[in-house]
Amino acid sequence: MSNIPWQDKPENSNEVIWRYSNNPIINRYAIPTSNSIFNSAVVPFKDGFAGVFRCDNKAVQMNIFAGFSKNGVDWDINHEPIVMQAGNTEMIESDYKYDPRVVFIEDRYWITWCNGYNGPTIGIGYTFDFKEFFQCENAFLPFNRNGVLFPQKINGKYAMLSRPSDNGHTPFGDIYISYSPDMKYWGEHRCVMKATPFEESAWQCTKIGAGPIPILTDEGWLMLYHGVINTCNGFRYAMGAAILEVDTPENVKYRTQPYLLGPAVDYEQVGDVPNVVFPCAALHDIEEDKLAIYYGAADTVVAMAFGKLSEVIQYTKDNSL
Amino acid sequence: MSNIPWQDKPENSNEVIWRYSNNPIINRYAIPTSNSIFNSAVVPFKDGFAGVFRCDNKAVQMNIFAGFSKNGVDWDINHEPIVMQAGNTEMIESDYKYDPRVVFIEDRYWITWCNGYNGPTIGIGYTFDFKEFFQCENAFLPFNRNGVLFPQKINGKYAMLSRPSDNGHTPFGDIYISYSPDMKYWGEHRCVMKATPFEESAWQCTKIGAGPIPILTDEGWLMLYHGVINTCNGFRYAMGAAILEVDTPENVKYRTQPYLLGPAVDYEQVGDVPNVVFPCAALHDIEEDKLAIYYGAADTVVAMAFGKLSEVIQYTKDNSL
Amino acid sequence: MSNIPWQDKPENSNEVIWRYSNNPIINRYAIPTSNSIFNSAVVPFKDGFAGVFRCDNKAVQMNIFAGFSKNGVDWDINHEPIVMQAGNTEMIESDYKYDPRVVFIEDRYWITWCNGYNGPTIGIGYTFDFKEFFQCENAFLPFNRNGVLFPQKINGKYAMLSRPSDNGHTPFGDIYISYSPDMKYWGEHRCVMKATPFEESAWQCTKIGAGPIPILTDEGWLMLYHGVINTCNGFRYAMGAAILEVDTPENVKYRTQPYLLGPAVDYEQVGDVPNVVFPCAALHDIEEDKLAIYYGAADTVVAMAFGKLSEVIQYTKDNSL
Amino acid sequence: MSNIPWQDKPENSNEVIWRYSNNPIINRYAIPTSNSIFNSAVVPFKDGFAGVFRCDNKAVQMNIFAGFSKNGVDWDINHEPIVMQAGNTEMIESDYKYDPRVVFIEDRYWITWCNGYNGPTIGIGYTFDFKEFFQCENAFLPFNRNGVLFPQKINGKYAMLSRPSDNGHTPFGDIYISYSPDMKYWGEHRCVMKATPFEESAWQCTKIGAGPIPILTDEGWLMLYHGVINTCNGFRYAMGAAILEVDTPENVKYRTQPYLLGPAVDYEQVGDVPNVVFPCAALHDIEEDKLAIYYGAADTVVAMAFGKLSEVIQYTKDNSL
Amino acid sequence: MSNIPWQDKPENSNEVIWRYSNNPIINRYAIPTSNSIFNSAVVPFKDGFAGVFRCDNKAVQMNIFAGFSKNGVDWDINHEPIVMQAGNTEMIESDYKYDPRVVFIEDRYWITWCNGYNGPTIGIGYTFDFKEFFQCENAFLPFNRNGVLFPQKINGKYAMLSRPSDNGHTPFGDIYISYSPDMKYWGEHRCVMKATPFEESAWQCTKIGAGPIPILTDEGWLMLYHGVINTCNGFRYAMGAAILEVDTPENVKYRTQPYLLGPAVDYEQVGDVPNVVFPCAALHDIEEDKLAIYYGAADTVVAMAFGKLSEVIQYTKDNSL
Amino acid sequence: MSNIPWQDKPENSNEVIWRYSNNPIINRYAIPTSNSIFNSAVVPFKDGFAGVFRCDNKAVQMNIFAGFSKNGVDWDINHEPIVMQAGNTEMIESDYKYDPRVVFIEDRYWITWCNGYNGPTIGIGYTFDFKEFFQCENAFLPFNRNGVLFPQKINGKYAMLSRPSDNGHTPFGDIYISYSPDMKYWGEHRCVMKATPFEESAWQCTKIGAGPIPILTDEGWLMLYHGVINTCNGFRYAMGAAILEVDTPENVKYRTQPYLLGPAVDYEQVGDVPNVVFPCAALHDIEEDKLAIYYGAADTVVAMAFGKLSEVIQYTKDNSL
Repeated sequence: MSNIPWQDKPENSNEVIWRYSNNPIINRYAIPTSNSIFNSAVVPFKDGFAGVFRCDNKAVQMNIFAGFSKNGVDWDINHEPIVMQAGNTEMIESDYKYDPRVVFIEDRYWITWCNGYNGPTIGIGYTFDFKEFFQCENAFLPFNRNGVLFPQKINGKYAMLSRPSDNGHTPFGDIYISYSPDMKYWGEHRCVMKATPFEESAWQCTKIGAGPIPILTDEGWLMLYHGVINTCNGFRYAMGAAILEVDTPENVKYRTQPYLLGPAVDYEQVGDVPNVVFPCAALHDIEEDKLAIYYGAADTVVAMAFGKLSEVIQYTKDNSL
Repeated sequence: MSNIPWQDKPENSNEVIWRYSNNPIINRYAIPTSNSIFNSAVVPFKDGFAGVFRCDNKAVQMNIFAGFSKNGVDWDINHEPIVMQAGNTEMIESDYKYDPRVVFIEDRYWITWCNGYNGPTIGIGYTFDFKEFFQCENAFLPFNRNGVLFPQKINGKYAMLSRPSDNGHTPFGDIYISYSPDMKYWGEHRCVMKATPFEESAWQCTKIGAGPIPILTDEGWLMLYHGVINTCNGFRYAMGAAILEVDTPENVKYRTQPYLLGPAVDYEQVGDVPNVVFPCAALHDIEEDKLAIYYGAADTVVAMAFGKLSEVIQYTKDNSL
Repeated sequence: MSNIPWQDKPENSNEVIWRYSNNPIINRYAIPTSNSIFNSAVVPFKDGFAGVFRCDNKAVQMNIFAGFSKNGVDWDINHEPIVMQAGNTEMIESDYKYDPRVVFIEDRYWITWCNGYNGPTIGIGYTFDFKEFFQCENAFLPFNRNGVLFPQKINGKYAMLSRPSDNGHTPFGDIYISYSPDMKYWGEHRCVMKATPFEESAWQCTKIGAGPIPILTDEGWLMLYHGVINTCNGFRYAMGAAILEVDTPENVKYRTQPYLLGPAVDYEQVGDVPNVVFPCAALHDIEEDKLAIYYGAADTVVAMAFGKLSEVIQYTKDNSL
Repeated sequence: MSNIPWQDKPENSNEVIWRYSNNPIINRYAIPTSNSIFNSAVVPFKDGFAGVFRCDNKAVQMNIFAGFSKNGVDWDINHEPIVMQAGNTEMIESDYKYDPRVVFIEDRYWITWCNGYNGPTIGIGYTFDFKEFFQCENAFLPFNRNGVLFPQKINGKYAMLSRPSDNGHTPFGDIYISYSPDMKYWGEHRCVMKATPFEESAWQCTKIGAGPIPILTDEGWLMLYHGVINTCNGFRYAMGAAILEVDTPENVKYRTQPYLLGPAVDYEQVGDVPNVVFPCAALHDIEEDKLAIYYGAADTVVAMAFGKLSEVIQYTKDNSL
Repeated sequence: MSNIPWQDKPENSNEVIWRYSNNPIINRYAIPTSNSIFNSAVVPFKDGFAGVFRCDNKAVQMNIFAGFSKNGVDWDINHEPIVMQAGNTEMIESDYKYDPRVVFIEDRYWITWCNGYNGPTIGIGYTFDFKEFFQCENAFLPFNRNGVLFPQKINGKYAMLSRPSDNGHTPFGDIYISYSPDMKYWGEHRCVMKATPFEESAWQCTKIGAGPIPILTDEGWLMLYHGVINTCNGFRYAMGAAILEVDTPENVKYRTQPYLLGPAVDYEQVGDVPNVVFPCAALHDIEEDKLAIYYGAADTVVAMAFGKLSEVIQYTKDNSL
Repeated sequence: MSNIPWQDKPENSNEVIWRYSNNPIINRYAIPTSNSIFNSAVVPFKDGFAGVFRCDNKAVQMNIFAGFSKNGVDWDINHEPIVMQAGNTEMIESDYKYDPRVVFIEDRYWITWCNGYNGPTIGIGYTFDFKEFFQCENAFLPFNRNGVLFPQKINGKYAMLSRPSDNGHTPFGDIYISYSPDMKYWGEHRCVMKATPFEESAWQCTKIGAGPIPILTDEGWLMLYHGVINTCNGFRYAMGAAILEVDTPENVKYRTQPYLLGPAVDYEQVGDVPNVVFPCAALHDIEEDKLAIYYGAADTVVAMAFGKLSEVIQYTKDNSL
């Protein structure tokens, strides 16, 4: 029986994705030290949910914090950041941590994040209980962001999406996939999909990056992602969806030409970084056909949006590039 | 008897231009596919009004759509973009269309827009009925934007204002005029007016571009235009006015040092591109001394503002650079 | 007996600095010609207060205006800008004036501002009565901004904080101190403090600049200042505090790692330049332990915030870099 | 009987284009005021040759000068620049003139050049005798460079190649063609060929521009052009060739993937702008199968190179993109 | 008995590294299609030497070619580029190949190069005979350059130096090391050394990259590398040396503050990219204390320089940062 | 009787300034540690000459060295850099020193240079004997370059030319004058002259900076200076002259539109920074009408040029902007 957060589609709405009416679910000052809480990840855990939250403090230092919730909407976030122990290697340098993703594979919860190691790259860690955390080798050389693991091995190997970047406000960026036999050595890097030509789909023409953990469906892997357009007043982040082949996810079957959710309400349009919708996690229930998305809004707060899995898939197929 | 949209100046206001109290008149989702509707043009048509609207869809592709209105305020916009047939040449490539202007000359309605042909340039088309549209030769080589026709021939030739640009978020731009015997070949290019020195009038110091079709008055052509300043948080677009000589509109008689309307209310300050007031059309009634301006706000919605023609002209003369 | 503006800390608040509930105290159109009024300075004067206000007009030309207030909150600002007479030299060129500070030293009120002399540098002037104003030599060669005098001589010399800049939207900037025997010739330039490494305190990692006149306390000079981070959607300005040694203020004793006040409410987040908190003046009462700060918000309006002097000092010591 | 300059291919050479052994033919100080003489054009004239030369003076102001030669190699260049009279319009502003081309059509010699009119655009003039010169309407709006006329009308219209540019050291640029019924009004702008993808032909991947007047051959129009690559130490200009369809020269039949002549000797590699080979004129003799090219070297001197017309055409066909 | 190329130090010279008197050893047109031959690698092979050469053709396409030599100075370079077969994976995309390095490990010759796969990254291949070549998985995601293998496994793993880059003329760059159990999956990425602060050693303050295969000496791994300074007229590349710990080469023992060889003679200062000294290979003879370095000069030709191994090491220790 | 270096004008030359036939007079490796020696200053000293030389070492660290000469052409430069003692203040930080000027005023030799103090600014020092050197307060805040003292007080105050800059390869720059009563505190900053509009004199359109110590003549102060144009392959530095009013040198009487000496021979066109002529010192003999100029060439070596004082002055008057 499903217990993921849910709110029915508003009457008269014909949107595929609709916002939660009590957004934002987490405000910027939800813990004493925070300047902003956003771009965060959750998973089912025990009889409720656990999460890893990006909380920038009032010095605007970026770190990740564990949190817990009974219903997935109301959250208790720890006041101290996650402390890592050495995992499959010695302790890795970490100048900062941000934009976490979380996924359960086999016997533990894996966390990936943007790790500060001579610039941003993909940090990897795991936990069994969200109390003790273990940090592993970085997946890649700098510079990289938006590392997102698949929830199961593919052809016997771990698989990770990522976006090679630069060391600043990267004005480019495509999604790649890489494989690993052991969560330590990574190779077989393949390009999955690129930013689009301006004429074909402008909302995603500057850069793109994977969002929540991909969801296995009958049609393939459903990958929600963010796309960016560089307007004359800065970057605008919106959310789209793609469907990847099950055994060879480097092959894209469908990809939305329109965005699914773009900045259009106050908490998305106004904040530390205006006009940002940035999804990092999703809960789903195949039987009940429910999808609950967590996204950072305006780099300031956490918000939620909902959709019917079947409708999202159908829309992606019907509106594919 | 005048039937253009109108609302009297609010009491206690001493503004020359005042906003419509029910702004925005067209919201971003007014047609099913739209992400934003803005920077659009209208003309009197039959017993009401017709218009050409910039509707960016949710892939943020830019195209132009026809629309109709009885009162000039409430609009029915077609759900499908304008389809062009070959006009005075074979079909011209058009990667995208945006920022239209419309004007009736002699026997038909002429439309100009920013046409994607190896970058932005000025597209030209015409219609007799807003059902069938015919596309002509582009007026210029790339790169150009804000092509605005005069509503009658000048010295026997068609005349067009435009702003040479680059292929990006152009950080410069002056207004030129060009002439054509036949709407196909263009020449006699003259500089009309330039962005101002920062010290003299900073709101228009980065670039300027013509707005609505110029209006013939006793003082000369009244040209409303937009000016841009590059703040440390991006471009800010406001509206000013100039008066050009009737027979030689390359000569500027007056030009407002202050702006007439700048971004100051929520729908102008918050949206896909914050802080944009961008006029593209105006209706006027000389006898009733009325001016009704249509402008894009924050690259997201269409809004209206009103003024007395005589007051605008007097203000332009009294506050000229 | 204290008569500086004051409002007690809201119940349930644990902030060190809290906003005035009737903010903004001065709106953008408070005088007939203004587009925006912000980044302004006040001092006690006679039985009330006087101030020097940055009012950009609707041509977005920047100038400074005198104003008067009985209670420090409700202001009458002159409709004409300050006219300068020659002070300790012939008349100095001034293409524009902005971001004033005011301080009483010995027998007169000294004003510093960003003066347009082949680009921005630090203008100096004085007045005895806020009616007649005298302009002196610029303190430095271009390019410089945020010149802030100490309220008394240090080791027999006038002392000024400033921030060397460039001629544009300067993407760097540290605070220096310089000394003068006579308000005409300046030397002994020393670096006081720098923008921070991103990892240590990101809100002030791009540039910093002194704000109000430093306040002499038992712990040293309390210097409120602004810090800037360059987000992917532009600069974000927040306020911090530092404590400098009394006799050698080039030595920093404490400096807040977190910001004290950052853009988080509508009039700070939306305006001509979104996300700006920019303090330029403060009134204080040591005995009553009160601090009243004037700051520009979003480059559009003037707002106020309050704090207990002792709490600000304690917080600065407890949260020092 | 041919009298164009000529030097046989060096023994042991297998180059298609070879340099003149006495290069440069015109040195930088060849007239008293010059800092450099380069990027110049010549035509057969009477029983010898005439030319239009770009001579930058020692203030580095750019202007064009007439010159005469008996043998096409030894030149007398006037010490005063060309003075224009009004041609098919009133006198056109000309802040500077550079990079001329010359061609005889019907009854007169037409000259095009880069004309300073609010930035670079294409100036047009004519002469009957290289003594009196008449300046016509500029062909296009700014910004444009490298305007090159075809030596005869095409489908009853004048035809001109050009390269839309920006106002600086343009880091992009493709070749277009435009047509005119009267040398005054221009239209039917078509893209002829673009800078190449880096992987396909890197020497011409940044920008390209037409060089000498196209030469009519059995295979089509032979167009020599320059291509530019942006190395980490600046732009490098080399020369290639293309063959365009006779009646529709917007269609490219062949285009060299390799360059024909690149900077490789001292006067091409060292000078005011190192690493520049920039052809602006060519003489040819179909019967004798001779081609003599004039090119600017290092933006400092004029040099010559030779080739067999048939070999150049064959090479272009054999090494086409 | 040593047979590596050698030339004694010139009398009166007190340089640690001296140039070969017959430089360049390979000119730009050494094969029929080449525009330039530079940045190339050699190894002992059979009774002589083999090499992999970067030959850019006259379309300035970059590819690698095999070559052979009896004496290491006079080279026969194949006229056709190396053709790869699939190695430890399917065939990998390769838009271009440049800047090769070659090393013998265990049973075969490994080649690394900058491989064009959606931008530059590190390609890996091997050969047994310099006739058949096999291409393996790319080592890393884009963007990376200057991948250099160690000549033996370290702690049972292959080890590679590299420099994360961007997709252009990268204005930054530090040297990293990565490890692999199988030449397919890479991890354990560590920073080895960074560009220096300008004040400490300016010739290497913009970026650095490994050069030849590191040489095992009694003091540790001798790593020759290039360093770059960004002058106001472009990048200047010079050569330095560092000594790395034998078992943990991520630890730097010594590193030259001065450069060892900088651009100072014509073939280094003038060419397609002026002021470049770029070492890619070195032969050494420990017993005879000889070091022979191959370097690209001005991105145009291949040159050689010599030194005494013991002197280079001593100099590196005596002049270490 | 004059003993300054001299060489008569070559026959057939009609240049105002001519090069020394044995240039360069100091080569790049003239002291054991140097990478380059250039942009240096000399003065008459005892019965010969003394100088302060910019010698960048092979780590490309910039420092200044004393040197001595009997004839002004052949120089003995110390192998160790100048060591400063505290002068009119405590010891000033100096990350680097470059581009020195030297002048005798009253009782001692004053040296100014570009001093590294949180970026470039103007360092001041003095010596009586070129053995002991004393460092004073920096004249200005960062960022500044090319500080040049007048050889006598003006209106009772020391006077210095300088060029406000930024922290990089400054793409702008005008010449200012500042005054000081005591060589410690500086004020009365006035703009002397600016970079020129491109159309008026392009060789000096990007930035300008004072060169040698100004020379007092009957016509006023003769100021040699450098001007820079930004070509598409980098900055090109040439030399011009201006004449300033004697008592108010902020007023320019004449200024050459053409350059006097531009890069045109090998040691000026090829080197670490190609195309640089950068004068830093001049000796003169009014009676013998001789001027001997020392200039840095290509940021690599020191060269000399000569002229007749009267001819330089006449040329400046005859060719003034």
